Amino acid sequence: MRLVYYLLMEESLEDFLERAQRDFLAHISLDCVVFGFHAGQLKILLLKMKHEDKRALPGGFVRKDETLEEAASRTLRERTGLENIFLQQFSVFSDPLRSDPDARPQSLVLAGVSPEKTGFFAQRFISVGFYALVEFSQVVPRPDVLSDTCDWYNLEERGPLILDHDQILAAALAALQAQLNYQPLGYNLLPRKFTLPELQKLYEAILGKKLDRRNFQRKIFSYGILRSLDEKRTGVAHKAPYLYSFDLRKYQKALKLGLQGGW
Amino acid sequence: MRLVYYLLMEESLEDFLERAQRDFLAHISLDCVVFGFHAGQLKILLLKMKHEDKRALPGGFVRKDETLEEAASRTLRERTGLENIFLQQFSVFSDPLRSDPDARPQSLVLAGVSPEKTGFFAQRFISVGFYALVEFSQVVPRPDVLSDTCDWYNLEERGPLILDHDQILAAALAALQAQLNYQPLGYNLLPRKFTLPELQKLYEAILGKKLDRRNFQRKIFSYGILRSLDEKRTGVAHKAPYLYSFDLRKYQKALKLGLQGGW
Repeated sequence: MRLVYYLLMEESLEDFLERAQRDFLAHISLDCVVFGFHAGQLKILLLKMKHEDKRALPGGFVRKDETLEEAASRTLRERTGLENIFLQQFSVFSDPLRSDPDARPQSLVLAGVSPEKTGFFAQRFISVGFYALVEFSQVVPRPDVLSDTCDWYNLEERGPLILDHDQILAAALAALQAQLNYQPLGYNLLPRKFTLPELQKLYEAILGKKLDRRNFQRKIFSYGILRSLDEKRTGVAHKAPYLYSFDLRKYQKALKLGLQGGW
Repeated sequence: MRLVYYLLMEESLEDFLERAQRDFLAHISLDCVVFGFHAGQLKILLLKMKHEDKRALPGGFVRKDETLEEAASRTLRERTGLENIFLQQFSVFSDPLRSDPDARPQSLVLAGVSPEKTGFFAQRFISVGFYALVEFSQVVPRPDVLSDTCDWYNLEERGPLILDHDQILAAALAALQAQLNYQPLGYNLLPRKFTLPELQKLYEAILGKKLDRRNFQRKIFSYGILRSLDEKRTGVAHKAPYLYSFDLRKYQKALKLGLQGGW
């Protein structure tokens, strides 16, 4: 597994292009919006494209022998080093003009790759969007063959993205915000033990607005998904806040039936 | 518009196969689970395939110049006669073995179409699933070029479906059941005026279980999405029940923020 992983990492651009034509289904791509939470901020994982200023969502293609979900998991394993990432398919992006099918990616042109080798990119792609929620501290970001770097960015400081990736990101964030209204959220983004202010900051970062502390606590307690631990956060200057974890049985039930319970 | 529609209807199988290769994107299809509600039963729209006993969900392919949503709307317009159908993309079906890429549909083999003409079907398809909610009485079902009939079926009496269409139908029903837990539902399925027992029957048909009348009414009223009309259902034998309609402003808000309101 590890060996295969490093072999892939060291693949040249030319080898990748040759392999792409042979191994991947035509017309179908996937893009992943990877959310992490760190120091009170919502972060997203972006690639800095080679030879151009724009950034890109981690993406990939579907091998002829794998499902779309397997392709997304493989892509994210290659970019983050993580197995078993929480992945949710949220939308499909199919505007015929979302990319120019006759254009080759700028990074390939500038890398001096000859036109006959970049044929795989010169076609229309319908891209399936996935969002992923990961624990920030576990990720070891790694660039792909088309990019120089892979890194975390704050949402507001991400700069311009390629193609329709800003639209894909906005749709993923909207899906996450909608989820806050009817399902629990946080298990995949927070450490196992967290304080109520930390959970509130996560909600605020996703919603992009401040919440009233007392209303937040009343509402979140009413869902019955938190377990109060007999433990306090140590090493903080002020009054030490209590730690909580999710009650996983109730969390899973609320994921399935919604926060207000089923019929 | 009408003219184009009837021309399409009269297209021969051979013409369709020739056009498919030229006009549609490879590898991508769509399948639509069309739900209607009639006489207290949840119905789905199915095609009876030519030359075989199995039934199929209405489906289609994506033209090179259209989005996936446009392709789904076009497909449903051709099958139902309706414009502006409520459509929701709910999952993507991508098992490499979901259809045998070397096999031609049985209906084409039995129709005596030569193998070199059925090439478009002899490939792997990743299918995007949409569910549609329509008002039963408005639909005029029409078969496509591969099918003999297009008709409404009760969920339990539908018989075997082709390929993985049973799985696609089950996933659509699960998505609808989940929606009942956090969003309003019924506007696209019921006539404009309805009684509370009619609304309860719709919920029961989707959930596949009986609900307690008083609990149902308490819960549904608590969402504040119903408008009580000063009118009773006439022409019924027993005590005439009051009519209701949805308060569309509140209904739309609850669609966006969930039934318990946003943060």
